Amino acid sequence: MKVSVLKENLAKALSITGRAISTRGSLEILSNVMLTTEAGRLKVSATNLEVGINYWIGGKIEEEGAITVPARLFNEVVNSISSSKINLELEELNLHIDSDKDKLLIKGISIDEFPLIPRLDKSVLVISSKILRETLSLINFAAAQDESRPVLSGVYLLAEGNKLTFASTDSYRLAEKNIKLPEKVKEKIEVIIPARALIELTHVLSDINEDINICINDNQILFASNELEFTSRLIEGQFPNYKQIIPETNETKAIVNKQEFINIIKIASLFAKESANSINLNIKSKGRIEVSATSSQIGESSSFIEAVVEGKDGNISFNSKYLIDVLNNIKDQKVVFEMGGKLNPGVIRPDTDKNYTYIIMPLRS
Amino acid sequence: MKVSVLKENLAKALSITGRAISTRGSLEILSNVMLTTEAGRLKVSATNLEVGINYWIGGKIEEEGAITVPARLFNEVVNSISSSKINLELEELNLHIDSDKDKLLIKGISIDEFPLIPRLDKSVLVISSKILRETLSLINFAAAQDESRPVLSGVYLLAEGNKLTFASTDSYRLAEKNIKLPEKVKEKIEVIIPARALIELTHVLSDINEDINICINDNQILFASNELEFTSRLIEGQFPNYKQIIPETNETKAIVNKQEFINIIKIASLFAKESANSINLNIKSKGRIEVSATSSQIGESSSFIEAVVEGKDGNISFNSKYLIDVLNNIKDQKVVFEMGGKLNPGVIRPDTDKNYTYIIMPLRS
Repeated sequence: MKVSVLKENLAKALSITGRAISTRGSLEILSNVMLTTEAGRLKVSATNLEVGINYWIGGKIEEEGAITVPARLFNEVVNSISSSKINLELEELNLHIDSDKDKLLIKGISIDEFPLIPRLDKSVLVISSKILRETLSLINFAAAQDESRPVLSGVYLLAEGNKLTFASTDSYRLAEKNIKLPEKVKEKIEVIIPARALIELTHVLSDINEDINICINDNQILFASNELEFTSRLIEGQFPNYKQIIPETNETKAIVNKQEFINIIKIASLFAKESANSINLNIKSKGRIEVSATSSQIGESSSFIEAVVEGKDGNISFNSKYLIDVLNNIKDQKVVFEMGGKLNPGVIRPDTDKNYTYIIMPLRS
Repeated sequence: MKVSVLKENLAKALSITGRAISTRGSLEILSNVMLTTEAGRLKVSATNLEVGINYWIGGKIEEEGAITVPARLFNEVVNSISSSKINLELEELNLHIDSDKDKLLIKGISIDEFPLIPRLDKSVLVISSKILRETLSLINFAAAQDESRPVLSGVYLLAEGNKLTFASTDSYRLAEKNIKLPEKVKEKIEVIIPARALIELTHVLSDINEDINICINDNQILFASNELEFTSRLIEGQFPNYKQIIPETNETKAIVNKQEFINIIKIASLFAKESANSINLNIKSKGRIEVSATSSQIGESSSFIEAVVEGKDGNISFNSKYLIDVLNNIKDQKVVFEMGGKLNPGVIRPDTDKNYTYIIMPLRS
């Protein structure tokens, strides 16, 4: 291998593929990144066996070749080099990294030990990276973080006709987003993708400005563009039929400034630590939301913000974390909160997006 | 107590006094901050028994009083309030915190349990907060972090005539700064102050723009301004006579760009992890410094920067951490490196400040 690349491009490739590097790995090879010359470009690859990432950068390829090197060290080295151009040259298992002012050598491991990242090539749908990233940022956080029920640790993807749906739930709250596809899918697609993988994908997509092709086989999903392949395993099982818990009509509706809402929820949450984050929302039809919390040990809080309220007064208790999670991810300045009695789930939506629904189960107060 | 203050001022007071809050405290009261009305101002106090901080803010005092409340909770509450004005009112041990939109209550603990912060009032010298802060930032980091030899975990302060000296050493490196005082001190002063306390003081001083009075008694030192009192215990013992290790003449001198020097040291340090950070400096009289490191396991590095070199070629090995520490704290763009043979200590100085000297003991390479 004899290649010269721009530092900036190599650093980006290592940042993106770093998302699939095992940090507390059992297998030494999984903490390595693989470099391969391929059709005039340099391919950078990493996998933790759940997620695999290939990322291609341009460069001048003088000799073909492939090697794996420790990802963290190589990333730190590349980022520390101040020259804009980096030459890579392989001599047996030693990777020479040279720039104007640096002559460096990292000892590599043969690519024979590196796990294959599965390749899928039948694209079933196409979506812009921006829409996919924005959608996932509203969905990922609502999946379960533990794996006691594996399907709940995943994000549900359903494509049927020209409608694409993403949904997730940890059984305390639910997030759902519907997207209209420019073209109908040929056949119905229904899979569950590990949320942990999609959290990494969401980070990666912030660096990608191309359309993303989605390819699916029995147990793998691939998100691919000209420069990226992001592969994840799928979760087996049946996603719960969540449609039934989305309330149809609501008695109380309030439109509030999102940031003000976050602020008063945060104050109450400071007083809700011993009550499992339980805070109380009091929606007054005269035009305000009061948020309060009480702790026998540390004290109590009551704060309010102005709101545009329609319908009846409402009173309901929630885990403050589930409110903060969604409000931190909604980009609109205003959000809509709806409820229908203190025992029924509450609903939060961005003011301008009827295709996103976030449901929170109430707490008994 | 009935007081109204600006949120901004109270938040600043809690940020400053928070530097003396025990985070893993054994005594509950040490995780509290004390609020006291005093001569028309509100005094905010905290202590971890090693360091004590009083900070005064202006406000409208309607009723005198004093209470202690959990520092972390109170700080989070104050920072979460969006109104600019905060009213504090004490009802027995309950502190009511009210703003336009918030009615909050924090349960306090009586001030009877709060340790006294000693008061010292005989000022022995005065120094601007800016000079003190800049000096300490060049000195604190060179003190020992463990307390196996307590005097080395402290910073030495010597004032004699109109010369003020700060010095610290962990026996592997030494930092010394001399300052000319506007007035002579009445009698020689020689004390050792815990570096840990001075690290906190350095943070605090970035918020203080007044002259600092230093007062000393047998076992305490006080740094005081109109709004601040920062008290620390002193360390007993004799500071080592370090003057003898400061080299007088040097055979090799190089002037380099500080940031470039940091960059190539960082690259070498990536390859020096298994050799206790040992990196090699090669000063070439033709006008460059080469920095290199070798690891039998991971690889090797060699990088260079341009330098203005006077005198002989030089070759010496150092712990890279000790170089990075000082270079990260020097503000000048250029630094001077001097050495006199590979077995003698090296010297680093800012290009424009002959009153600061940093000595590093060489490693055997």
